[in-house]
This record gives sequence, C-alpha cells and structure tokens, in this order.
Amino acid sequence: MAEKIIIALDAMGGDNAPSEIVKGAVAAANEDIKIILVGDENQIKNELSKYDYDPSQISIHHASEVISMEDSPVAAIRKKKDSSMVVGLKLLKEKEVDTFISAGSTGALLAGGTFLVGRAKGIERPALAPLIPNNKGFSLLIDCGANMDAKPAYLAQFAQMGSIYMESVMGIKSPKVALVNVGAEAEKGNQLTKEAFSLLEELDINFIGNIEGRDIPMGLADVIVCDAFTGNVILKHTEGLGLALFNIIKEELMKDTLSKIGALLSKSAYKRVKRRFDYTEYGGAPMLGLQGLVVKAHGSSNAKAIKSAIEQAVKFKKEKIVEKIEEKINQ
Amino acid sequence: MAEKIIIALDAMGGDNAPSEIVKGAVAAANEDIKIILVGDENQIKNELSKYDYDPSQISIHHASEVISMEDSPVAAIRKKKDSSMVVGLKLLKEKEVDTFISAGSTGALLAGGTFLVGRAKGIERPALAPLIPNNKGFSLLIDCGANMDAKPAYLAQFAQMGSIYMESVMGIKSPKVALVNVGAEAEKGNQLTKEAFSLLEELDINFIGNIEGRDIPMGLADVIVCDAFTGNVILKHTEGLGLALFNIIKEELMKDTLSKIGALLSKSAYKRVKRRFDYTEYGGAPMLGLQGLVVKAHGSSNAKAIKSAIEQAVKFKKEKIVEKIEEKINQ
Repeated sequence: MAEKIIIALDAMGGDNAPSEIVKGAVAAANEDIKIILVGDENQIKNELSKYDYDPSQISIHHASEVISMEDSPVAAIRKKKDSSMVVGLKLLKEKEVDTFISAGSTGALLAGGTFLVGRAKGIERPALAPLIPNNKGFSLLIDCGANMDAKPAYLAQFAQMGSIYMESVMGIKSPKVALVNVGAEAEKGNQLTKEAFSLLEELDINFIGNIEGRDIPMGLADVIVCDAFTGNVILKHTEGLGLALFNIIKEELMKDTLSKIGALLSKSAYKRVKRRFDYTEYGGAPMLGLQGLVVKAHGSSNAKAIKSAIEQAVKFKKEKIVEKIEEKINQ
Repeated sequence: MAEKIIIALDAMGGDNAPSEIVKGAVAAANEDIKIILVGDENQIKNELSKYDYDPSQISIHHASEVISMEDSPVAAIRKKKDSSMVVGLKLLKEKEVDTFISAGSTGALLAGGTFLVGRAKGIERPALAPLIPNNKGFSLLIDCGANMDAKPAYLAQFAQMGSIYMESVMGIKSPKVALVNVGAEAEKGNQLTKEAFSLLEELDINFIGNIEGRDIPMGLADVIVCDAFTGNVILKHTEGLGLALFNIIKEELMKDTLSKIGALLSKSAYKRVKRRFDYTEYGGAPMLGLQGLVVKAHGSSNAKAIKSAIEQAVKFKKEKIVEKIEEKINQ
C-alpha cells in the first residue's frame, strides 16, 4: 500500500476507557494503518506501557478534557473544545486522519459529527447506522441518529447510503433494502412512510418494499430504513428483549433440578446463542453522510469490539465510501 | 346478578374459526352471561352439536357473509353488510349486546368499530390496546390501532384510557404510565412526544416519564403510550424477536449431543418460558374509546384465548369502563 490509513481513536470514550480502548488499538495495529489515540497523555501512556507495540503504528494526541454521558451533547461539543471527542473530530475535519472512532456519548458524537466534520456533498442529513442481529446474520438499521422528525427525502438518502455501505463494506451483493412499516402494501403507514415508499421505488437500489416489526428479526432485509425515532426504539428494543428473554430462560432453568442439569449440559449451545447476539463481532455503527467517517462504537465496547471497529473503518476508507455516496447522491 | 351480560362473538373470524371460537364460547358460558354466536347458522350448529351446553346461555345470530384477511378493511365494512363482523358491530351499536369480540381482520374491526359503533363522548380517537409480555408480567401497549399520524392530545387520552383499563379490569392499583421515547429526559424525542410529555404531566394519572425501547420488556411500566405506528412496530417486533430467539436457541441446542440431551432434560423449563410469552393467557386487545366494548382477539386464537377474551369482556362491563372513561375525559 502506498499510503497508510490513519485512524483517530477516542481513548477516553465508553464504559471501559481508556484500558479496553488502548488494548483494542494494540490488537488492531498493523503496518498498513496508523492509530492516533486521542485523550489524556499520561493515562494512555500508562495503558500502552502494558503492551509491546510498534510506535510507528500507534501514537498519542493529547486532549485534556472528556465529554461524559451526563454532559448535554450539543453544549459539550461547543464548550469542551479540548475534549478527546472534539479534538478527534477536528483532526478528521482537517483531513489529518481518515476516520474517527469513539465509544463515548452518542448524542455528542452525532452533534459533533454534523457541526465539526460537516455533511458530504448533497446529503440532507447524516445518519447513524448500527448493525442489528437477526435469524441469519445481521441487518443495517438506518437511521438511529438525531433525525427525530424525518422527511421522505431523508429516508431515500438513507436507503442509498445503507445500500452502498452493505455492498462495499460488508460485501453483500445487491443488498435488499426495506422500509419499516405497519403492513406490506404501499399505501400502508403514516404520512412519512407513504411518501417515502414512492421515493424508494424510484431509486437504483434493490428495494423489496415494506418490512413489518415481526419480520425485522427474520433477516429478510439487509438494509432496514426508518426515521431515527423508530430506529432508536427498534435498536433498544432488540437489546432489551434479548436480555429479558435470556433472564426469563435462566430463571425458569433454575426452578427444577432436571432443568438445571439440562442447562449445564447445554452450556456450549447457550454460548453460541449469545455469540450470535454479540455486538462486539460487528464493529461499530458508521455515521453515514459526512465528509469523513465517524464510527460510534458501543458504549460498553471491549478491546475486541474496538478492534472490529478499526477493521471496519479501514475497509470503509479502502472502499472509498464517502466518494461513492457523493457520486450516487449527486447523480 | 340482576342482568346478564350479553356478548356477541364473531364465530367466523380468525384462523381457527368457527371450531375453536365455538369451543371457547362453550367453555366460557355460565349463568351470568349470554353469548351470541354471530355467523353462518349451519356451520355454528354443526360445531355446537359436539358439545353439551345450556341454550339459555348460548344462541346463534345468523350472518351470511365473512370478511376475510384479503378484503380491504374499509371497503369490506361498507359492502359486506351481512358479514358476521358488521352484524356483530351493529348489535353492539343498537345496545342489544354489551360487547363484540372478533378474531377476524384487525383493520376491518378498527374501521367498523369507529364507523358503526361510534366514539365515546369526548374521545378524539379510539385506540387498540393489546397486552404485551415482559420480564415480570405484562404491560398494556396503547395505541396499536389506526392512528398512524397521532396528535399529542390523542396520546393524552390514550394514557387516561389505558390507566383506567389497567386499574379496573386488570386490578393494578395506580398503574404506572410511561411514554415511549428515545431518552429519559422530557425534552427528548420528536415533536409528538415532546408535546405529549407536557400534556401527560398535567394529567391525574401515575405518569412515570419516558420509557426507552430497552426498558419496555423490563416491566417498568403498566401502560405504555405511543402512536399507532410505533405501537405496531413494538408489538410485532416483540412477536418476531421472540420467535427468532426461540429458533436460534433450538438450532444451537440441536448442534451437539450434550446440548441435545440438556434440552430434553430442560423441557419443562422451556414450557414455562413459552407460557410466559403466551398471548392466550391475556385474552384479547380491547378497543378503547368506543360507546361499547370491542375486543380484538388474536388471529390465531384457540378456544382458551377466546374464553379469556370473554372473561375479560365481562369484567370490562361489570367495571363500567365506558362510563369511567367518559367521566374522566369530560371532567
């Protein structure tokens, strides 16, 4: 490779920062990339001292402040100018890095991404697009970001960006794109989905029509399009319902001796089930539609999740997703 | 009891009609109620001939047509004037019965309920309110009906109606009411939820604030308020995710011998888990805000589900829910 891909990583964001973030960076480092850990120099140095690593692959960019989960997102981005998040986003804005990854506050990252990095040409609203597990693998759920009152045109752009991402980064040929709705027919839904349906039909994507809540976990679509309110509910509901079900199963398995023994014997199966629902396998959620790549890693990311997010970011850059999105949108 | 409660039951609606519907009616019949089976007289007679029952408790009201799942809901209500659904709803309108229960097309029942039975005094929009399972028991999810583009004032009425229902019919004292949203703070969400939040705060109910998707399955609220689009997505997502998870667990349990044996031993635990997710325990979904009670039973209702729906309807009438709702709304 001619040029290294440069990744800025928020060393201070997330429940397990900085230890797991730094550990993930060390695990992901290789000769093709350069990782810049953004945050408190002393703390990062202390963490790095635990590992052997090549200093040409990992460096530190000091930032004295941290945006916490308690901070008001927009105010924090404005006021904490020397926070790891703001400093990282500015490195991206100034093209000193190709990507910024953070496991910190989603709200702050969304606000900062839009205000500091800026939208890609022709994009109305950037979108946050996590991968959610399903029966067969995973789907991209777009949007789970800040666009609470979306317009049909936003949804059309989300569909295009999601399709490009799943094809180029996740390697799914002609990804199936579906619109979240309350029924299969085109005329179903609220004002937003009715109008969005017609727009999606016109696009040069593999639009398979509406998808109902029941079918989202069945893996019928690769890209699931909705406004951010609906996306947020689906994303968090997936997490909560999974947890609740696992708790109920555990509770019932412990209620009688035979079931208890059965549970012990089936341990490896349960491990496999949990792995299929494990977000760490999927890397982070890309924020699509910006001039560079911002990745939101899960707040409770461990080293493995951070490593996945870095690998995903490398692919994003190699596949020139920003350029592809701009080309498609401005056709 | 001075007067019998009279229930009209759509004998032709649902996947298992008329056999399971008639069986459920026979199981629920007792001296305090009178059940009128609405539908094809010959078919119903044929089913009834399988059982011993008291003819003073169960009778037949002939209707020659059936609204199918393929019919367009609004058109079907208008055109199939002698369908079991239209005939049953008209019996309710004319106060010849106290309740109409159907496991048929939800869309047709919603349209028919509103057009034929009419709204309770002061109600802006009637709502469909199913019970959904959670960690601890179940919550009422209101609205899952036809109000795709809701206004804040509708949501305020849903909160009041849901609260009355859970208190009077389900016996929960001072039910906890929450608004579906993307965060805990009052200022979170879309235009609808922001405005609805202020309205809900003013009401004489136990409003506990916003609830996120993650917490819905945790049983933190007894009444979960949202627009029908969001409600439909949550309801169907609960069903789909439950199914997907059970399938994945089954798949993994069958992959190795030890797990297989474990699964056999844990059979009774799995049965208990399934029962906790079993809709048949909860009766049907009431359509709240009409001049009488319309209950939507699940499309795949068996006799047990129909029996539960009948028992729920009896309680609804005894507790004078329609009167309580009108009183509260017009205070």
